[in-house]
Amino acid sequence: MTTTTRDLVVGIDVGGTKTAVLVSDRFGAVAARAVGPTALGAPDVVVERIAVAVEGALSEAGATIADIAAIGVGVPGRVDPASGVVTLAVNLGWHDLPLGSRLAERLGAPTVLENDVRAAALGLHRRRVFGAVESLAFLAIGTGISSGVVLDGLLHRGANGLAGEIGHVIIEPDGTQCACGNRGCFETVAAGPALISRTLAGWGAGGNGRDGAAHAESDVTRVREIGAAAVYAAAAAGDPVARDVVDAAGRAIAWGIHLLALAYDVERIVIGGGVSHAGDAFMTPVRLQLDRYRASSSLAAEVLLPDLVQLLPAGADAGAWGAVTIARESLGLGSESLGLGSELPALALQGREVGHV
Amino acid sequence: MTTTTRDLVVGIDVGGTKTAVLVSDRFGAVAARAVGPTALGAPDVVVERIAVAVEGALSEAGATIADIAAIGVGVPGRVDPASGVVTLAVNLGWHDLPLGSRLAERLGAPTVLENDVRAAALGLHRRRVFGAVESLAFLAIGTGISSGVVLDGLLHRGANGLAGEIGHVIIEPDGTQCACGNRGCFETVAAGPALISRTLAGWGAGGNGRDGAAHAESDVTRVREIGAAAVYAAAAAGDPVARDVVDAAGRAIAWGIHLLALAYDVERIVIGGGVSHAGDAFMTPVRLQLDRYRASSSLAAEVLLPDLVQLLPAGADAGAWGAVTIARESLGLGSESLGLGSELPALALQGREVGHV
Repeated sequence: MTTTTRDLVVGIDVGGTKTAVLVSDRFGAVAARAVGPTALGAPDVVVERIAVAVEGALSEAGATIADIAAIGVGVPGRVDPASGVVTLAVNLGWHDLPLGSRLAERLGAPTVLENDVRAAALGLHRRRVFGAVESLAFLAIGTGISSGVVLDGLLHRGANGLAGEIGHVIIEPDGTQCACGNRGCFETVAAGPALISRTLAGWGAGGNGRDGAAHAESDVTRVREIGAAAVYAAAAAGDPVARDVVDAAGRAIAWGIHLLALAYDVERIVIGGGVSHAGDAFMTPVRLQLDRYRASSSLAAEVLLPDLVQLLPAGADAGAWGAVTIARESLGLGSESLGLGSELPALALQGREVGHV
Repeated sequence: MTTTTRDLVVGIDVGGTKTAVLVSDRFGAVAARAVGPTALGAPDVVVERIAVAVEGALSEAGATIADIAAIGVGVPGRVDPASGVVTLAVNLGWHDLPLGSRLAERLGAPTVLENDVRAAALGLHRRRVFGAVESLAFLAIGTGISSGVVLDGLLHRGANGLAGEIGHVIIEPDGTQCACGNRGCFETVAAGPALISRTLAGWGAGGNGRDGAAHAESDVTRVREIGAAAVYAAAAAGDPVARDVVDAAGRAIAWGIHLLALAYDVERIVIGGGVSHAGDAFMTPVRLQLDRYRASSSLAAEVLLPDLVQLLPAGADAGAWGAVTIARESLGLGSESLGLGSELPALALQGREVGHV
């Protein structure tokens, strides 16, 4: 006779292309992982695909659904945690999808939902990845730009669930049209699609750009297919157009960090998301501009403390850990049960890239 | 024999030129008011001047210091509420002034300090001036620009006491030099000194400006002496330079409101401060720009709900009520003791202008 103790939790990070599943025990130790393609469109297919990925991970862990205390799902879009409904996830084509109840029904375990960036912020805070702090903002730069904010240890969602949507603060009043309808939003300068379109526009359609240089069709193809990473690579290789684009993005991201610091005055601003995976190439222009702010303004120096800005390593699995975290919180498990004390060092980052943004 | 019940609280709003004192009973009814000039510089003079104003107000209320349970002070600058020290109040010339302990000693009642804009935000929230909301931002536009933010019913101060300092978010990267050291801060476009200097620069030193019109020396003098209000008056009278300045300020303030809405997603953004006392002349360009945002973006329309933005009437005494509020909170008195229930209408605004910014 087996006794099921329901001492596992499942975190599901739904990304634009991949869905990552992480099975963890109640103390935060990894029991299993799985990654599968994200299903777009029809609710039945979406639910079934996620359920199959979860079952695969459970079987890898030698467990069954009877061992699961709770499931957490991070979704790149707007969700209503209270009802478990994905209100709108543009990039996934999901609209008013009751993902929470559908998954709970299909898998037979309580399921909670949260916006992926918010869940990641909460996970980074609870796991003390960047120290035991009261407040933290996670700035995710990928297809779009948004932030998740933990203040006084609590996730701040806002009155309409829109808190932290700083990707739509306007940085260039007469700038590029944004998907939101306004012009010159932060996203139109520094998100992945902006980096790609600005580079391609600079190079010119035929590969002969404003820099007068000829660009091989392969360069253009690489940027189209690989995206922002190829723009950073081109900039590193000395391409002047890509360099301008990357520098402008870096200045904009520093501006956004300064904005977050002044608005929230958090202890940590963690930078993540697909675009940030370019690592040093990504951070160098950001750091340069932050240093300029600090050098010219004592207020900026005071609010932009040296430990404030942290780059999340590409393999940090912040999305999946965030999903595990919201599952744990739904069970009333705080960071205490992770066995963390303020004397203990921060947990090491575990895992690999899941492309949570 | 008289029994002293210590059932009064005192709120002191230290403004750049005037200091307002408000004596209130524990239920929020006004017992007395007084206004006196703010003393700059020497700590002894500062403390004595405030103490005399408090004693004057108490005597008007037929009370003595023995009736006072707590004193709250709102200061236009950086304060450390825990130690009662004014770290820096540039416009008052105060630096590391232990105002809390000095006043407590001189007057013989416990004294708490807070930044004036934060105290005002808390007061507006607790008194339900704009309804019983969980979250509220108070955007004060005067000599500088800053905001005080109440989230989930709690004042949000930030890790370094700098939360809400959005006057230094950069709006014009190559703009005017700001007092903080950086260029193009929000303050350099929309705060009082910016309105004045931009108008005078537009008119030209001799009264003949870029608009080709001759400006009477009296116009220039009025702007120099009255300040932003004279700029709004000139704009209303059709002066093209003043109109441009006022329109640019209005667009910037709408931008700041949009920023606050996206960052915090609060239920109310209340606009106050000396510059806002121009009323309709001040708000019309702001509302126009907010409407433009709403018209072009459904996200903006969703976050900029019709009830979101509220203009504080010039006579609202938000600063003095804020100071009363922090005194009440130091006694553990919440809004319940104000006799407010969710069924009750919002308290009417009381009092007159004290120029809290």
